[in-house]
Amino acid sequence: MPGAYLVGAGQSDYGAFPGESYRSLFRTAFEAARESVPKGIGTDDVDEAVIGTLGVGGRQLGLSGPAVTEHVGLDGVPCTRVENACAASGFAVRQAVQAVKSGMADVVLAGGFEIMSDTSSDATKYWLGVSGETEWERLSGTTFSGVYAQMASVHMEQYGTTREHLSRVAVKNHENGAKNPHAQLGFECSLEDAQSAPVVADPLNLYHCCPTSDGAACALIVSEDVVDEFTDDPIRVAGVGAGSDSVGLFQRDTYTSVPASERAGKAAYEMAGVGPEDLDFAEVHDCFAIAELLAYEDLGFCERGRAGHLIESGATEIGGEIPVNTSGGLKSKGHPIGATGAGQVVEAFKQLSGEAGDRQVEGAVRGLTHNVGGSGGAAVVHIFERETGVGA
Amino acid sequence: MPGAYLVGAGQSDYGAFPGESYRSLFRTAFEAARESVPKGIGTDDVDEAVIGTLGVGGRQLGLSGPAVTEHVGLDGVPCTRVENACAASGFAVRQAVQAVKSGMADVVLAGGFEIMSDTSSDATKYWLGVSGETEWERLSGTTFSGVYAQMASVHMEQYGTTREHLSRVAVKNHENGAKNPHAQLGFECSLEDAQSAPVVADPLNLYHCCPTSDGAACALIVSEDVVDEFTDDPIRVAGVGAGSDSVGLFQRDTYTSVPASERAGKAAYEMAGVGPEDLDFAEVHDCFAIAELLAYEDLGFCERGRAGHLIESGATEIGGEIPVNTSGGLKSKGHPIGATGAGQVVEAFKQLSGEAGDRQVEGAVRGLTHNVGGSGGAAVVHIFERETGVGA
Repeated sequence: MPGAYLVGAGQSDYGAFPGESYRSLFRTAFEAARESVPKGIGTDDVDEAVIGTLGVGGRQLGLSGPAVTEHVGLDGVPCTRVENACAASGFAVRQAVQAVKSGMADVVLAGGFEIMSDTSSDATKYWLGVSGETEWERLSGTTFSGVYAQMASVHMEQYGTTREHLSRVAVKNHENGAKNPHAQLGFECSLEDAQSAPVVADPLNLYHCCPTSDGAACALIVSEDVVDEFTDDPIRVAGVGAGSDSVGLFQRDTYTSVPASERAGKAAYEMAGVGPEDLDFAEVHDCFAIAELLAYEDLGFCERGRAGHLIESGATEIGGEIPVNTSGGLKSKGHPIGATGAGQVVEAFKQLSGEAGDRQVEGAVRGLTHNVGGSGGAAVVHIFERETGVGA
Repeated sequence: MPGAYLVGAGQSDYGAFPGESYRSLFRTAFEAARESVPKGIGTDDVDEAVIGTLGVGGRQLGLSGPAVTEHVGLDGVPCTRVENACAASGFAVRQAVQAVKSGMADVVLAGGFEIMSDTSSDATKYWLGVSGETEWERLSGTTFSGVYAQMASVHMEQYGTTREHLSRVAVKNHENGAKNPHAQLGFECSLEDAQSAPVVADPLNLYHCCPTSDGAACALIVSEDVVDEFTDDPIRVAGVGAGSDSVGLFQRDTYTSVPASERAGKAAYEMAGVGPEDLDFAEVHDCFAIAELLAYEDLGFCERGRAGHLIESGATEIGGEIPVNTSGGLKSKGHPIGATGAGQVVEAFKQLSGEAGDRQVEGAVRGLTHNVGGSGGAAVVHIFERETGVGA
C-alpha cells in the first residue's frame, strides 16, 4: 500500500463572520492550503475530495461537499461529505488517507467548514444539540456542557482534579492562541480570570468552554508515488486510528475516560510504531477543559488520574515535554465544528514545517492530532512525521 | 492493493413504518446482510463501518453512524457517516472499498437508512428540499420534481422522447417491483394508469415520480485476504467510479445528461475493464422516470437521445438485453434516501447469487449499480462480478 503524505494545509480565520458564506470561508482555507505546498499544486492535480461538516449553518445541507468543491474549481472531482459531529474533518483526513493508500487516488483534499454564528434558521437552533444522544440526553435537556460537566465532576471526585486544573487549560491555550493570527479568542487570560468566570454547567465555567465559530480548514494528502512533485521535505502520515462508542455518555462504563479516544490513539500508535513518549507536540480536542485533561490520559501522556498534575507541571506548555494545543486549541483558536479536525492538521503542518512563528516547538519532527465527535461517540487520531527530521 | 469483495447484503422492507425507528430498521437490514453471507459472519469480524444517511427523520442528526452501529453490536468499531444526498450509501460502499483496498480494514459494513414518513420535526420539513441548490433553486421554490421536469422537457424537445416513454419506465419497474417482497409499491400498473396519473411537475406525473420511504440496507465488503472465510463463490467489486458536478442544474452546460453519472460510469468501466455491453443487469437511479432514461444514455446502454427507443424496445425488461431495475427501482421498490445506494447493491448481490426469485436474470454474472445525489451533484457507480461465472 502506498504511503500517505501531508503536503499542505491551511485555514481561514476562526470567528464570527456575518459577511462570509460557507463557500467563501472554504475558498480561503483551500487557497491557503494550496499556497502552503512547497512546490505548488493546481486544482487539476486533485483527484478526490472529502469534506467534513455538521451543517449547522443550514445553507446547503445535502451535497454540501460538492457545493464547496465546485466553488473552488474542483469540477467533476469525486467528493464525499462526511459527518461525525465535531470529528467530521478528522474523519475526512482519515478517509483521504484510505483513498490514497487504496491506490484509487494520488492527491486528495480533506477539508471542513462550519457556519455557527448565523442562527436565523430553525435548523441551526435545532442542530446545535443534535450530536448529543437524542432520546435520553438531548430531549431531556442535557447539553454538551452538561455532559462534559458530568465527566469533570466524576474526575474531580475520583482523582482529586480541581477547578484550578481546569482553569490552567484555559490559561495555557489562550497563551498559545494569542500567538496564532487565526485565533478567534486570540488574547491571554490570567488564572484569576479563568477561575472567576460565570458558571456554565458546574463545575465548568465560561473559560472552561470553547466558543462557537465560523471557519474552514483544508489539508492536502498525497500518495508516496507523487509526493516528490509537491515537496522535498515530506511529512508522512505515520499513523491513523479511529474508534467509536455509544453516542450517549450514560450508556458507557466510564465517565473518566473516552474509550473511543483510547482506541483511536492505540491504533494510531501501533500503525506508526511509536508511543506517546515519541511525540514532540499534540493538538487535542479541548471542547471543554476537562476534555483536554481526559485526552492526556486517554492518549498516554500521563497515567490515569494524573492529568491535573500534568497541566500543573507545565509539561504541556510550549517548551515543556509534550506541548499540547500550541494553536490555542478549540478554546482559544475556536471550534467551527466541521473544520476543527482539519484545522488541527493545519497546526501540525505548520509545526512540522517550522512555520509556527512565536509558538514554534523547536525541532518538532513528530506530532499528533486528536479529534472527538460528541461526548466521545467517535474519535480519530493522526500521527504526522517529518521524514528528514526523524532520527536527526 | 487487495481486491474487494461483496460477501453479503440485505435490506429492510421499504415503506412507511410509524412503529419502527431508524435503529430498528437498520438492525433488520444488518441482520439480513449477515444472514446472506454464505459461510456466516459475526459482529466481531467487522473492522469498520460506513453509514449513509441524509438525516431526514431528524432523530439523531449528528453521529447517526455510530448511533446505528452501536445498536447492532459493533461496539467500538470505527464508524463514519457519509452524506451525498440520495447517493449517501452508494458513496458509503465506495468508501468501504477504499478502506479494504487501503489495507486498513478487512471487513467493512457499508449501509444506509432513512426515515421519511415522520414529518413531525421542523428539520424534516426543512430537509426534504435541502439537497437541491439553495440560493437559486430551493429558495426560489424549485423542487426536485421541478428540476427533473426541466430535464425531461428538454430531452423531449431535443430527442423526441415522449410521455409514453416516461410512463413505460413506471410500467416496467412496477412489473419488477411486484415480484420483490421488500417493495413499497409492489403492484403492477398498466400503461393507461401511468399515462393518466395526476400531474406533479409537467411533464412528470405521479407515476413518473418515486415515493418517499422509510428503510435501511446493508452490504458487507471484504478484502481478498479473507474472502474465503465467508464464501466459496466470491463476488468481486470489479469497478468503482464517482463524479461530482455543480449542485444546481442551472449551472450546467447540459440538461439532457448527468455529467457526474457519465464520469462515474467511465471510471467504473475502466477499473473493471469492461463496457456496458458486458453487463447482465443494472440498477439505476430512477428517482424520476426521466432519470432512468438519462442513465441509459449516461452509462452507455444506448446512444445519446435513444433512451426512449430503448425502453420501448423492451431491452431493459427482465429477459431483455440489459435488464434495468429488476428490483423495482426507486419507483416501485422505494427510495429511503440514505438506504438507496446500498439497497441497489442488495439487488446486485441477490442477482449474482441466483437468489432473485421470480425476477432472476438467468445466468447473471456481472451487474452495475448507479446512485445519484440531488439532480446530479454527485454520482457513484459500482460493477460487481461473480468470479466463478466469468467466462463460464
